[in-house]
Amino acid sequence: MTRIDIPEGSPFGLDNLPYGVFSTPGTPPRVGVRVGDAVVDLARALGDEVFARPSLNAFMAQGHRRWAEVRERIAELVRGDLPDDAVHPVGGVRLHLPFEVGDYVDFYASEHHAANLGRLFRPGSPPLMPNWKHLPVGYHGRAGTVVVSGTDIVRPCGQRKAPGDPAPAFGPSRRLDIEAELGFVIGTGSALGEPVPCEEFAERVFGVVLVNDWSARDIQSWEYVPLGPFLGKSFATSISPWVVPLLALEAARVSTPPQDPVPLPYLRESAPWGLDIELTVAWNGQVVSRPPYREMYWSPAQMLAHMTVNGASTRTGDLFASGTISGPGPDQRGSFIELTWGGKEPIEVNGEPRTFLEDGDEVVISATAPGAGGGRIGFGEVRGRILPARCPAS
Amino acid sequence: MTRIDIPEGSPFGLDNLPYGVFSTPGTPPRVGVRVGDAVVDLARALGDEVFARPSLNAFMAQGHRRWAEVRERIAELVRGDLPDDAVHPVGGVRLHLPFEVGDYVDFYASEHHAANLGRLFRPGSPPLMPNWKHLPVGYHGRAGTVVVSGTDIVRPCGQRKAPGDPAPAFGPSRRLDIEAELGFVIGTGSALGEPVPCEEFAERVFGVVLVNDWSARDIQSWEYVPLGPFLGKSFATSISPWVVPLLALEAARVSTPPQDPVPLPYLRESAPWGLDIELTVAWNGQVVSRPPYREMYWSPAQMLAHMTVNGASTRTGDLFASGTISGPGPDQRGSFIELTWGGKEPIEVNGEPRTFLEDGDEVVISATAPGAGGGRIGFGEVRGRILPARCPAS
Repeated sequence: MTRIDIPEGSPFGLDNLPYGVFSTPGTPPRVGVRVGDAVVDLARALGDEVFARPSLNAFMAQGHRRWAEVRERIAELVRGDLPDDAVHPVGGVRLHLPFEVGDYVDFYASEHHAANLGRLFRPGSPPLMPNWKHLPVGYHGRAGTVVVSGTDIVRPCGQRKAPGDPAPAFGPSRRLDIEAELGFVIGTGSALGEPVPCEEFAERVFGVVLVNDWSARDIQSWEYVPLGPFLGKSFATSISPWVVPLLALEAARVSTPPQDPVPLPYLRESAPWGLDIELTVAWNGQVVSRPPYREMYWSPAQMLAHMTVNGASTRTGDLFASGTISGPGPDQRGSFIELTWGGKEPIEVNGEPRTFLEDGDEVVISATAPGAGGGRIGFGEVRGRILPARCPAS
Repeated sequence: MTRIDIPEGSPFGLDNLPYGVFSTPGTPPRVGVRVGDAVVDLARALGDEVFARPSLNAFMAQGHRRWAEVRERIAELVRGDLPDDAVHPVGGVRLHLPFEVGDYVDFYASEHHAANLGRLFRPGSPPLMPNWKHLPVGYHGRAGTVVVSGTDIVRPCGQRKAPGDPAPAFGPSRRLDIEAELGFVIGTGSALGEPVPCEEFAERVFGVVLVNDWSARDIQSWEYVPLGPFLGKSFATSISPWVVPLLALEAARVSTPPQDPVPLPYLRESAPWGLDIELTVAWNGQVVSRPPYREMYWSPAQMLAHMTVNGASTRTGDLFASGTISGPGPDQRGSFIELTWGGKEPIEVNGEPRTFLEDGDEVVISATAPGAGGGRIGFGEVRGRILPARCPAS
């Protein structure tokens, strides 16, 4: 039998208990929970076959009462001794995509980000569009290209055209960027024709992941009118392997910044779902930004209410992301296009002036939040490295 | 034993053989093929368990050689006698969603449609955006709300704001519309980082369905800037229950209209994939439009090449649709916003002036194409009826 020794101040204490899918050499992927520097094999520890599957979907579909029960049971179990074969050092496991993604929606919920992008993409016009403070603007992304942290990112090829060019050229993106976001994972779906009110957020949403929504700005700016981003985003979206349960984020709940005008009734919250989560963006090992999630204008409960108010159904595994998290400070911006002001104001990374991503670059986004125990809980990280483009002959 | 009697001139002769998923009372959904007015139970007729599943996905994933083999085998079998329990009259079966939808992408490939919408949404500006003739514009839609023909469509609720209104109002859409489209179903997926050239279209795409991409124009026009359509589309997209194999459409292949400027190399076709398919749109039983697919500017092979040129992967069951099919004639427009010019020029339907959809209205889109036998093959239909809105309290 094994007892897990949780290091003092670990971001993976009993007030966190994030879920993931892991494998060890020669065994199939299955559900685990992270405790300190260990991964607990839940099928072995709890003897429940729902955890023997290669995704969290079946467990998430069991609903919020079950999520709470299992969380209590795990906290109890890991205080005692566990069978040796139920505990693995985190360094010895491979982490997989933790859930099968249904639909992927990306919002645009940071006022600072939307205003920065407005200034950069539409100079001379008001930074926010007229609809922005009335609804959480969002769009569907490509679910099939959501990948787990650690997956290499091949630089995308595509059409790009600067305003002065006579015609578009084809080639590798020259303005490859990141977007530091949080993603919310639907546990219990909702039927077609049944809007999900803000009040049902915690019943529906199982947990939270870190998201890096890689963005090819040159491809995006040429293609996106009038139907929105497409190939500039769809080549890859990375998520962290650990899904932090919403139940672990009670101590992180805060009010959103004041919303003016007052939102329409379907977007009004009776309890706050702003979240005091601090992100960190590291570019080749150097921290270049600390985006604060508490500054987000729209809460994730409002995003979910909006996404379903037209009767759209949701499914277990649907992922909706916040959009880039940017705070008011210049060192709180969640994308390089903002940090370098469209590439015109390079920042120094390891002593060199940098604007967009170069081949070989690595970006790591991590985050922490206040935990129930008075310390901070961790989200782990979402990591990705840029490989050279492999463009088709042209 | 039973021999299927195919009526003279049937659109479901041996040169068609579309696949679907059906059930009979008390039996689970499984794969069938339509022959004349009968549905052949393929698991029984061929003794292959891949057809005993409730979707076409497993069969589609077997690849294009297998699709051709099975098609030949079916044509052989249905010329002879089949076991009684392998043949059902089509009127006695229930038809289901024929495949599990991976990602859903909607293009915008009709020049006439894009120009009409440009004139309506952006009066005073050039009707086509600068990018339109350089790339097939597209965006991701909601895969989880793709429904099979016959599913009732609940009128969506949402925010809408006419240009003169001081603030948005919330309520049922007042400008509920259709979009008559074709949808292309990926059979064999492609890996991340591997663009699919135009030449691989027939290896990758299993077949074609009819699509009605229901659209709430008032919700759409308020929300869509800058990230594209979202709730104005995501409440429902209807598809026909029969997937017409691409192999049945050889006689329908035509060149697209001339493309000027010449597309970039990755968008050039070595063999034409325009399709001479005639659609019919019936509103409460009256034919109001006959959109011609042969007028589409971009071919579906070009759409697939574009969708993957950035390295985006595809999966079995991915659906990409053409966008609204509109021809040059006023009676060839595939949406009501075009047919009624933004609602300003009502058309007469059963003796009444009509603009957008009212509760209780029913729309049926059908199509035919030249078949290998010299006659015409049918796509069946995609049908939907509008039910009153069920807005949340506001």
